Amino acid sequence: MGKLLVVGSVALDTVQTPFGQAEEVLGGSATYFSTAASYFTSVDLIAVVGEDFPDKHVAFLKSRGIDLTGLERRPGKTFRWKGEYTYQMNEAHTLDTKLNVFETFHPKIPEPYRAPSLLFLGNIDPELQLDVLSQVKRPALVACDTMNFWIERKREALWKVLEQVDVLIVNDAEARALAGHSSLVQVGKTILARGPRHLIVKRGEYGVLMFNHKQTFGAPAFPLEQAQDPTGAGDTFAGGFVGYLAATGNVSEAAFRQAVIFGSVMASFTVEAFSLDRLRVLDYKEIEARFREFKRLTHFEDLTGA
Amino acid sequence: MGKLLVVGSVALDTVQTPFGQAEEVLGGSATYFSTAASYFTSVDLIAVVGEDFPDKHVAFLKSRGIDLTGLERRPGKTFRWKGEYTYQMNEAHTLDTKLNVFETFHPKIPEPYRAPSLLFLGNIDPELQLDVLSQVKRPALVACDTMNFWIERKREALWKVLEQVDVLIVNDAEARALAGHSSLVQVGKTILARGPRHLIVKRGEYGVLMFNHKQTFGAPAFPLEQAQDPTGAGDTFAGGFVGYLAATGNVSEAAFRQAVIFGSVMASFTVEAFSLDRLRVLDYKEIEARFREFKRLTHFEDLTGA
Repeated sequence: MGKLLVVGSVALDTVQTPFGQAEEVLGGSATYFSTAASYFTSVDLIAVVGEDFPDKHVAFLKSRGIDLTGLERRPGKTFRWKGEYTYQMNEAHTLDTKLNVFETFHPKIPEPYRAPSLLFLGNIDPELQLDVLSQVKRPALVACDTMNFWIERKREALWKVLEQVDVLIVNDAEARALAGHSSLVQVGKTILARGPRHLIVKRGEYGVLMFNHKQTFGAPAFPLEQAQDPTGAGDTFAGGFVGYLAATGNVSEAAFRQAVIFGSVMASFTVEAFSLDRLRVLDYKEIEARFREFKRLTHFEDLTGA
Repeated sequence: MGKLLVVGSVALDTVQTPFGQAEEVLGGSATYFSTAASYFTSVDLIAVVGEDFPDKHVAFLKSRGIDLTGLERRPGKTFRWKGEYTYQMNEAHTLDTKLNVFETFHPKIPEPYRAPSLLFLGNIDPELQLDVLSQVKRPALVACDTMNFWIERKREALWKVLEQVDVLIVNDAEARALAGHSSLVQVGKTILARGPRHLIVKRGEYGVLMFNHKQTFGAPAFPLEQAQDPTGAGDTFAGGFVGYLAATGNVSEAAFRQAVIFGSVMASFTVEAFSLDRLRVLDYKEIEARFREFKRLTHFEDLTGA
């Protein structure tokens, strides 16, 4: 389908979970997204880092074939996030956020990147998401993420974004907060009525639901022997999902469903290690093998007869 | 496969949810289980009620074809449970429990019921579960439930029960407490190593995972327009699951997976209304239709090629 453009954050994370810790490791929504998507398609990354951003991380992203023309390096420090997880690994507890250069991030899309086939708007201020949309020629598919912070503070701008978006990818708490319903079926109807043709609700270790006007698709998360660190799982899911759609160039219901499974596969690898450590050593055969395990995990025989 | 024997509680519930309330309505684990199973097979119910148990409830259970020879009526009052749910409908908050005649319940299996093909041991003291097992000729399939109260207080007796059980059906918190792991994959290995050949982990609105020594099966819950009252959903799941196995007489992996879906279908109906009100008016065509909707909900195309 052509090139995938992603706008979001690149960060240095410090994370503690019951199974270990990591300090000042590579993180950020656009990082996880791009790396996951890079297994399926070519990716142009728009983000900002500070002067302190280690060259080795730049080298890693380049090694994944990600185009870093749009990665600005600005005076100041890189975005830092510090968080921890208890045994209830489904929810991060933020200990500290230092936006640093990300605070004044104002994405400028370089001229050669203004006609992407697919666009992913990572979790940034909806007004910046609108600005990005105004800079690009309408892509075949636009997906976006957001968070409760923007749902509470920039609701109107966010709805304007959603009018121009094909797929909204959020977690269940965000979806409920945005729609003001507890039933996800009602959440789906409310959100789809205002713009996106598809709503994907991420439920962490419980899996994913995808709603469109005609169908609902549900999949469990892949059951893991040991989840080490859930950081970035949602962004990785989005990267696998959009990346697969870019690779196939197919936006049928069947392709969307497979894309959800590829997103879930990629997310399941991410949580097996801290930072992007599992994705660093992943190969495509492992991705395909886990996709097939997903099929075995979820398959059951239909009823026979009419 | 023949007759299904169930031992558990029959209760009068008072329930409040964000969507309404119900006072002194029919409840109890064996009630939900038997009613759900009655759509698939014939059921013999072993339970106890007090003198105040309304005749209309007896009439309802009879109307479902449930054999009530083993339903003791004792001097005293029927078991009462009072609970409420917030918008997080996945967890009940118990406000009051009055065991009443259930406190001294000591199941005696009437002679004609001592050779069931399938046995479901509802959530009662594991020592009573052992006693029931000692009263019956070994059935082709034994399933059981338990709760944190017994996991904490009667762990050794519970493990003895599990050595004689084919399928343990519990929620995720119970499974984790029993095994002492947070990873459900590790939970599965730990529990299967000590007895049951199958572990079913119920996750409420998030669905179900089923583990055995060879395979894992996962299914989401059916997404509902409006869940009214989750009370009894877990017992209904178990009733649909075991009831379907009884009906087919098939204990293959394929049948177990379909049984999980039938259990999920039945549970999804139960939560659509208070008490057993949805099950009262349910017919088998609706059950089959929702099974097929489940297939559409979860189906995706496998990868082509090797």
